[in-house]
Amino acid sequence: MTKSKPTTTGALSILEAATELFARDGYECVSVASIADLAGVCKANIFHHYASKEVLYLEVMRKASAEHAELAEALLKEDISCVEKLHRLTEYDIKTMIDNELRTRLILRELGEPCENSVRRLAHQVFRRNFQLVIELFEQGQRNGEFRNDFDPAAAAVAWCGSKNAFFLCREAMQDLDLFKGTDAARGFAEKVCKLLIDGILPVNNVISSTEKKIS
Amino acid sequence: MTKSKPTTTGALSILEAATELFARDGYECVSVASIADLAGVCKANIFHHYASKEVLYLEVMRKASAEHAELAEALLKEDISCVEKLHRLTEYDIKTMIDNELRTRLILRELGEPCENSVRRLAHQVFRRNFQLVIELFEQGQRNGEFRNDFDPAAAAVAWCGSKNAFFLCREAMQDLDLFKGTDAARGFAEKVCKLLIDGILPVNNVISSTEKKIS
Repeated sequence: MTKSKPTTTGALSILEAATELFARDGYECVSVASIADLAGVCKANIFHHYASKEVLYLEVMRKASAEHAELAEALLKEDISCVEKLHRLTEYDIKTMIDNELRTRLILRELGEPCENSVRRLAHQVFRRNFQLVIELFEQGQRNGEFRNDFDPAAAAVAWCGSKNAFFLCREAMQDLDLFKGTDAARGFAEKVCKLLIDGILPVNNVISSTEKKIS
Repeated sequence: MTKSKPTTTGALSILEAATELFARDGYECVSVASIADLAGVCKANIFHHYASKEVLYLEVMRKASAEHAELAEALLKEDISCVEKLHRLTEYDIKTMIDNELRTRLILRELGEPCENSVRRLAHQVFRRNFQLVIELFEQGQRNGEFRNDFDPAAAAVAWCGSKNAFFLCREAMQDLDLFKGTDAARGFAEKVCKLLIDGILPVNNVISSTEKKIS
């Protein structure tokens, strides 16, 4: 959809300026002129790289989602357990979200808006690809018999995505809770939320003892 | 913090107008004059009920969180299993979020903002009480031996809150997925996410068969 791939310095600085302004002021309030100002280029230069403000916005969304999608696609093909895949994706994702605070806030804010116009619908389609890859990870675990078959992979993907988004959003307001403390709180949470999804909250002992009774 | 409890028709219509405008335009962009306009009262009348725009905003947040907090507190005292409590709270909460779309979007947008000023910090403290009650539910289940002891109750609360927020936010963009389809998708999701948290994704069969091997 872009006229040219944003590989040149100019196109990249436009993308960075656009990310910063969209994140701060929202899609509607940002003008192409203000992006040109911040990027230190002229408006014509922006339209050389991106056909419209809409196309530029979608490119920001696509770039922000690309790394996660690429890792998820690579993991799906790797010859390791799905539990390990889930751990790697979770840890990578939470870390990347925090390292790119501005971009993450932009995506989460976009997700919070109703799909009321075409740019919003297209932006949600960009995230949709990432969401689909997380569903596939859970489906892969079900197909190979590693995960149980009686849960809904889409519900698991919603729970997984929602958990890391909530951790990102709450980590400032909840700093005094142990969960959010320490230099590696993100890694700790990634481990804990994986463990939770993998093991659940019911004691395994209950299952074992009911089985033992049946057998004896 | 309010000068008088918002029980009068005037105070309630001010709260409703404030909720609508804050949700649409954000805290910073809404003036007391515009709230007075929409509520059909004069500015002086607003200041009769609420000392400042900040106090009115916090009252909107408090009211939006109150029902959930009251149900959670009541459930914590009830003589039913914690699994049942989790189910009831989840179903009630997702339904209430959807029934009060505007209010929910306001809260989720507020959660997405950094705690950069006093009104923001105070608003986050309002949600904090609700979050604490969800943690207590998981802790109660651990204390009474119903839940396993090796998960972090705060991580479980983040996963639970994040899951329902993500369902709320994605349900429009993901309408074509089975999970979001049907007249009672919210109830279906509530059941599925509870099942997921309760049972986890690892097959019970693995546990049973490893036990059987040990016994035989």
